[in-house]
Amino acid sequence: MSFSIGHILTDHLVVFTPSGRRGRFAKGTNVLEAARELGVYVESVCGGRGICGRCQVEVQTGHFSKHGIESKAENISEFGAKEKRYAEKRDLKEGRRLSCSSTIEGDLVVDIPLDVQVNAQVVRKAADNKIFDRKPAVQLCYVEVEEPDMHKPLGDLDRLKVSLEKDWQYESIEVAHHILPHVQKTLRQGNWTATAAIHKDAETSAPTLIALWPELKNEAYGIACDIGSTTIALHLVSLLSGAVIASAGASNPQIRFGEDLMSRVSYVMMNPEGRGAMTDAVRKTLNELIGEVCDTASIHREDILDMVFVGNPVMHHLFLGIDPTELGGAPFALAVSGAVHTSAKELDLEANEGARVYMIPCIAGHVGADAAAATLAEGPHRSDDIMLMVDVGTNAEIVLGNKEQTVAASSPTGPAFEGAEISGGQRAAPGAIERVRIDPATLEPKFRVIGSELWSDEEGFTKSVEKTGITGICGSGIIEVVAEMFLAGIISEDGVVDGSLAGRSSRVQENGRTFSYMLHDGAQKIIISQNDVRAIQLAKAALYAGIKLLMDKQNITQVNQIRFAGAFGSFIDPKYAMVLGLIPDCEIENVKAVGNAAGTGARMALVNRDYRREIEKTVREIEKVETALEPKFQEHFINAMALPNKVDRFEKLGKVVNLPERKKGADDNNEQTRPRRSGGRRRRA
Amino acid sequence: MSFSIGHILTDHLVVFTPSGRRGRFAKGTNVLEAARELGVYVESVCGGRGICGRCQVEVQTGHFSKHGIESKAENISEFGAKEKRYAEKRDLKEGRRLSCSSTIEGDLVVDIPLDVQVNAQVVRKAADNKIFDRKPAVQLCYVEVEEPDMHKPLGDLDRLKVSLEKDWQYESIEVAHHILPHVQKTLRQGNWTATAAIHKDAETSAPTLIALWPELKNEAYGIACDIGSTTIALHLVSLLSGAVIASAGASNPQIRFGEDLMSRVSYVMMNPEGRGAMTDAVRKTLNELIGEVCDTASIHREDILDMVFVGNPVMHHLFLGIDPTELGGAPFALAVSGAVHTSAKELDLEANEGARVYMIPCIAGHVGADAAAATLAEGPHRSDDIMLMVDVGTNAEIVLGNKEQTVAASSPTGPAFEGAEISGGQRAAPGAIERVRIDPATLEPKFRVIGSELWSDEEGFTKSVEKTGITGICGSGIIEVVAEMFLAGIISEDGVVDGSLAGRSSRVQENGRTFSYMLHDGAQKIIISQNDVRAIQLAKAALYAGIKLLMDKQNITQVNQIRFAGAFGSFIDPKYAMVLGLIPDCEIENVKAVGNAAGTGARMALVNRDYRREIEKTVREIEKVETALEPKFQEHFINAMALPNKVDRFEKLGKVVNLPERKKGADDNNEQTRPRRSGGRRRRA
Repeated sequence: MSFSIGHILTDHLVVFTPSGRRGRFAKGTNVLEAARELGVYVESVCGGRGICGRCQVEVQTGHFSKHGIESKAENISEFGAKEKRYAEKRDLKEGRRLSCSSTIEGDLVVDIPLDVQVNAQVVRKAADNKIFDRKPAVQLCYVEVEEPDMHKPLGDLDRLKVSLEKDWQYESIEVAHHILPHVQKTLRQGNWTATAAIHKDAETSAPTLIALWPELKNEAYGIACDIGSTTIALHLVSLLSGAVIASAGASNPQIRFGEDLMSRVSYVMMNPEGRGAMTDAVRKTLNELIGEVCDTASIHREDILDMVFVGNPVMHHLFLGIDPTELGGAPFALAVSGAVHTSAKELDLEANEGARVYMIPCIAGHVGADAAAATLAEGPHRSDDIMLMVDVGTNAEIVLGNKEQTVAASSPTGPAFEGAEISGGQRAAPGAIERVRIDPATLEPKFRVIGSELWSDEEGFTKSVEKTGITGICGSGIIEVVAEMFLAGIISEDGVVDGSLAGRSSRVQENGRTFSYMLHDGAQKIIISQNDVRAIQLAKAALYAGIKLLMDKQNITQVNQIRFAGAFGSFIDPKYAMVLGLIPDCEIENVKAVGNAAGTGARMALVNRDYRREIEKTVREIEKVETALEPKFQEHFINAMALPNKVDRFEKLGKVVNLPERKKGADDNNEQTRPRRSGGRRRRA
Repeated sequence: MSFSIGHILTDHLVVFTPSGRRGRFAKGTNVLEAARELGVYVESVCGGRGICGRCQVEVQTGHFSKHGIESKAENISEFGAKEKRYAEKRDLKEGRRLSCSSTIEGDLVVDIPLDVQVNAQVVRKAADNKIFDRKPAVQLCYVEVEEPDMHKPLGDLDRLKVSLEKDWQYESIEVAHHILPHVQKTLRQGNWTATAAIHKDAETSAPTLIALWPELKNEAYGIACDIGSTTIALHLVSLLSGAVIASAGASNPQIRFGEDLMSRVSYVMMNPEGRGAMTDAVRKTLNELIGEVCDTASIHREDILDMVFVGNPVMHHLFLGIDPTELGGAPFALAVSGAVHTSAKELDLEANEGARVYMIPCIAGHVGADAAAATLAEGPHRSDDIMLMVDVGTNAEIVLGNKEQTVAASSPTGPAFEGAEISGGQRAAPGAIERVRIDPATLEPKFRVIGSELWSDEEGFTKSVEKTGITGICGSGIIEVVAEMFLAGIISEDGVVDGSLAGRSSRVQENGRTFSYMLHDGAQKIIISQNDVRAIQLAKAALYAGIKLLMDKQNITQVNQIRFAGAFGSFIDPKYAMVLGLIPDCEIENVKAVGNAAGTGARMALVNRDYRREIEKTVREIEKVETALEPKFQEHFINAMALPNKVDRFEKLGKVVNLPERKKGADDNNEQTRPRRSGGRRRRA
């Protein structure tokens, strides 16, 4: 477009909020077209016929000094016949206009309201409802189709395609086979009006007609799902508003075949029917969860047209029906690393017969589609600052970078962080100790237990844990108790429990050649042994060494932002993670738990196909570091055995926490501290 | 490409036969690449590695004055290592070279032999083996795939795609879902070599990986099939050589639901399960026929990768699982008229899991994919001369045109040509009279019967028909007897049996108010009544009127070429068809029966996807004429009631046949001659 000065003076300035995109348009320009020209996404199912009501906007009136606009109600055209008809039939809220049916008559500030929801039963879940630009891979297209004519013997489907090409600019439309038998009935039922669902994903893929309804169809849904090895989290999302309509979660039923990933891979290797049984199990649970969210939202499964799934490589392969055996040993070859485009039908998922499925790419054999989705959500690759993203599990997935370059690795942390291999360790469940504080003077602890809001030294605590008991210590509790033991001087920088304190406190107890700390003395004694401390040291050293390798790759010594993804990350106190030296030194306020970032990434890819291209490109560009092959891993690992680290200073942490003074010359380079190597590497569970 | 004079002088002239394509190439140019540059199709599965042997050529030596070339054996490079290895392992015939492994060293005439068949068990069917340029929609691509590498965590499938992109120039390859679970095993089994089948049809469609085998796979097959309402004809074709490997046929099992098309449509309308039952029946028979051709050729179903089906609109719809009810009444709306791209799996056809299916477009509600396929085979749209193509049946399909313009119509001829509505009429089966001659002097007939080689006046005839008897008269017999009655003066130009002849011959007999001709007096009396003659007049007048409408559209009064397609056409003697005035006057040698042209068209579309584009474009451009809506139909019909025609001269026919002198003023425009109109129109059976 080229403007002369004359144009600029006579055209009207229009600003769309909340995006803030602005442009000058001639008087009489259609508001919807103006929005589209500026790249502002406004939904429209009916193609500007004023019947779907999806394109509603709200004119903001007043003087907007930041935009330099005097926006007046009279600067948009008056209510036309189409809007009047819509308002009468469907109740158009005060102040709302159909952008397809109104024109620019002066300077305007036009808001695209986020609650444009025609379907009254749609309920927004308040929590975690990030708003993303929408550009779904499946679009609803209302069309009016020419009636059959003996003089023009084009078939019904062919005339439908002509309308889709003319009104919606889709060319060379392919047709899903199951549509063929229903075309004639549907078009006649709708009296030659229909709504087509067109799937168009990658630029190189042809638009495909995947569903067809008579008349106007004004709602379409999608599923975004993170298949975790422990938990499956699934969301029902409106493809038209982008809102999460309902969510559901369940344990991964594959747990009965093996708790962690490696045991599931082993199960497949040992049992000829194992792969099929685990594939069927997860798909069955997914179908149940889809049923659950549909019930909650009172919608039909048949209105689900698109789905995005993420998961770690083993979950990804089992879901797709691929034998994960190759992922169980070097070189950890993925069957497929790139994005997978398939259909619900191929995966036995019950939804609309034409529903499509997209899987975000995997980054590497240990860094799955879940890590890629978390990357998409948190955006290290979009960040100016260096961002570290960590998903802690049996196998930690680590992504580090900024918009210049992003690198990724996995590190074999083992299951210590999840309470396994710890004497009093247990899963995060009621009765588990999750928070710990130790008084440096008395060495007396206080703690909190899952299921109670009280600290153990508060009144009523004993009663509050009567039901659950105090059964063990979970991941976040272990992190805190070891960190607090260090801060209280019970363990040294090298992680050795100081036996000399046994005299000062009965909680420090001798166990043969080493000492331990008694956290709780009750029906269930909970003791932190020297071995427990060692297990945590090994785990955190592996994670930190992996992070350090990535920092080496990036040639940096500091990170600006840290994100903890995943369930475990949500419960870790960033301060204690840093005291332990699990993560590098960082301003404490820049360390954030981001919850199920993988699920958020799946939702983004569901509502906007540009995010699919973004993460595909990012994954192709991410440099993958195989920690097991890096010569410096060993050195970083040994340094990271110390608390918080033998060589790295934690100065930013030091400003908020009183770190014990460093010892000189201490070295803990003994047999026990060797990192686990690839042969026996553990996988994230 | 731009050549300087210097290039032309130094480069070598190469002519490829049989295509005759020629070009100049620098010394050392690869022969396969030279062929491709000229658009000469040479198969290669292994991508120039010298292992598949598909790219064999034969250098023709000597002086070729028509090409202006002295082609010498030394003008091609000497046997290289790859060719030697191939010749040792696989037996390369004397004189044969692998074009992928040899280079141009001087002027050459290079023949692409038609028998390049590596697979010894392949047997060519001699009959009807037209040779078409090959460019199948499914291509076999041998690749060597990089082994997995921990430093480059691309998945196995992704590395396979990289090889396909690099070696075969396929970009943005999509992957059929069923491939995913097998990729890893297949690549390892082939020691990182594999053969991929890539489906690429329309320009706008993405290339799709549909099958994968370990190592080199050197044969792939397709199915070409014409689903007639009476007979199904199916061919197994090598996608690599284009040769028909085996053929099979069967009755259409839908006959048990109704003999002709309208009765099948009625069956669907009356029986809720009717559509499904007929769809299942035809697919089951197709699966049996596929089994039969695979057995004959000793190949596996799994090696069938592509299929092309044609059929009239009702067969087309029932095969696809579409209710044909709309085709039973005006406006005769097709559910889909354009080409259909689907998969064998969607149609329950047993072949390779990834096998694709293509259906040629339908021209109109009464002019099906079979007529389009016949058009593709006979090529009126490629012809300089005006060509008329007629497929006679209960509903005749008519295509008329040349490369300037092509028009098409159907005409409701009714079932008279097939022996129905004729007193002694029957299907073409042993015992049926198929040929008739009448002596104009004695009015005595002689005839031939299906199942005997003898004429009825030859010695041994009676014995030769003892088994079958003489049971009736079939379509071609009816055409001949009515034409001979006309030539012998038994019926007038108006079709009236001349009662005055009853005195001259006892074969002319009175039947109430009209007269008849006794063709055979035996156990089964076969009489041609006045009503029989009328039925034939009505049928031929309908066909001729349709042809005339198309001639009007084209603004012509003469056609240069006539093609009779279909089984019925194969048995009609063109001379008698013309005497009856079934078809317009034409040089008798330019009237040809072309047999199952629809099947030939299906084979063309199978072996070369450019033919798919050609027929899609042709069908879009064909002007369709709805005979029932044309005001001049009635006039043409009435003129065509006369023998051969009331107004049209048959001068070319007059040169080979003694036509009776024309009467003046005769007119037969009575009640009985009204053409059938659309309401009660009959469909081709």
